Amino acid sequence: MKRSDLRLYAVATPQAMRGRDPVEAVLAAIAGGATLVQVRDKESDARATVELTRALRAAMPREVPLLVNDRVDIAHAAGADGVHLGQRDLSPAAARAVLGNQALVGLTIHHPHEAVADARIDYAGLGPVFATSSKDPGDPPLGIDGLRALRAAVRERLEPLPVCAIAGIDRDRAPAVIGAGVDGVAVIGALFHADDIAAAAVALRTAVDQALAKRTRR
Amino acid sequence: MKRSDLRLYAVATPQAMRGRDPVEAVLAAIAGGATLVQVRDKESDARATVELTRALRAAMPREVPLLVNDRVDIAHAAGADGVHLGQRDLSPAAARAVLGNQALVGLTIHHPHEAVADARIDYAGLGPVFATSSKDPGDPPLGIDGLRALRAAVRERLEPLPVCAIAGIDRDRAPAVIGAGVDGVAVIGALFHADDIAAAAVALRTAVDQALAKRTRR
Repeated sequence: MKRSDLRLYAVATPQAMRGRDPVEAVLAAIAGGATLVQVRDKESDARATVELTRALRAAMPREVPLLVNDRVDIAHAAGADGVHLGQRDLSPAAARAVLGNQALVGLTIHHPHEAVADARIDYAGLGPVFATSSKDPGDPPLGIDGLRALRAAVRERLEPLPVCAIAGIDRDRAPAVIGAGVDGVAVIGALFHADDIAAAAVALRTAVDQALAKRTRR
Repeated sequence: MKRSDLRLYAVATPQAMRGRDPVEAVLAAIAGGATLVQVRDKESDARATVELTRALRAAMPREVPLLVNDRVDIAHAAGADGVHLGQRDLSPAAARAVLGNQALVGLTIHHPHEAVADARIDYAGLGPVFATSSKDPGDPPLGIDGLRALRAAVRERLEPLPVCAIAGIDRDRAPAVIGAGVDGVAVIGALFHADDIAAAAVALRTAVDQALAKRTRR
């Protein structure tokens, strides 16, 4: 398994980009400091998502990994670097059977019991931290205290797995989120609803980096 | 590529089974003469569809192939025999890259230009023939004359590819559908809305077999 840089995880949902070109929007996020990108599209057909993912992979710098949400087959067809799975998606093992051991596989975790040591994942996304308009709520928000507790439980079970936090995180909330012990933040709206996506990425990444540095110093 | 028996193609949509157990419903359809089964579920999450597909594959007689609609990754994870793809799903080549050359791959065709010789499919589903409540219409219905013309165009391009017809087909319409030159009928409601699924399958299969025999004699 590979060490993932989760500091600023850009979750690219074309429908949440205010009509802008998704490739340009993602390149702006990367220019501003995004370290990892996920295509998350629950509305388009598979062929369109394959095409978007291919276009992103071709346009993005090689060192920034590109994952696909849920659809292992789309990730394979488009040559993405891996998948991000929810608890009700295919299992990490089933994803690896298609994508191979080199693929990056991430998993959303909301409950400590979902942190299973043999899942062979590269990182976990902990959430939802806050309520958000970008996706269906599903599980109730953890809040900062819940995130800290979940992070501790995951550390106990899956150390040294890197983890990010997801849902409703913006620049103002990022310091407290990082303070809860995670390695980065996954965002949709805080990047892609912004007028200036690159500037929003710089602001978020700076907030994350400063909070990480502060944590290290303690 | 394998010769597919398309005479009675049961498209198993759990939501269209009036609350009955999908495994029992499909076994009843097979007992009544279904020759091929497809899992088509646009609503459940991937893990549930993997579980249903596995349960079906374990319960069904080995000689009846089981395909999954659209989701190549679910077909792989569940050990299905192949996939049925629409024009906006993954390409047949992308599906074979995951599932291998032994997999059964079917493709929906509505326009003659979609019958492409290098697609490496095992069969084509032509439709929609009639309007139906079981799925979104998408393309306008072909009708019997349109089906005959499409069947001729596909034969010209892709002979000897077997083809079935789909959408809105019931026992009464089956003879005219088979008369238009196809090798079988794919059905959802005509089987799974019926009070007695096995009896509905017998009636459909009998109508198809009689119409095929009549065509052969001509």
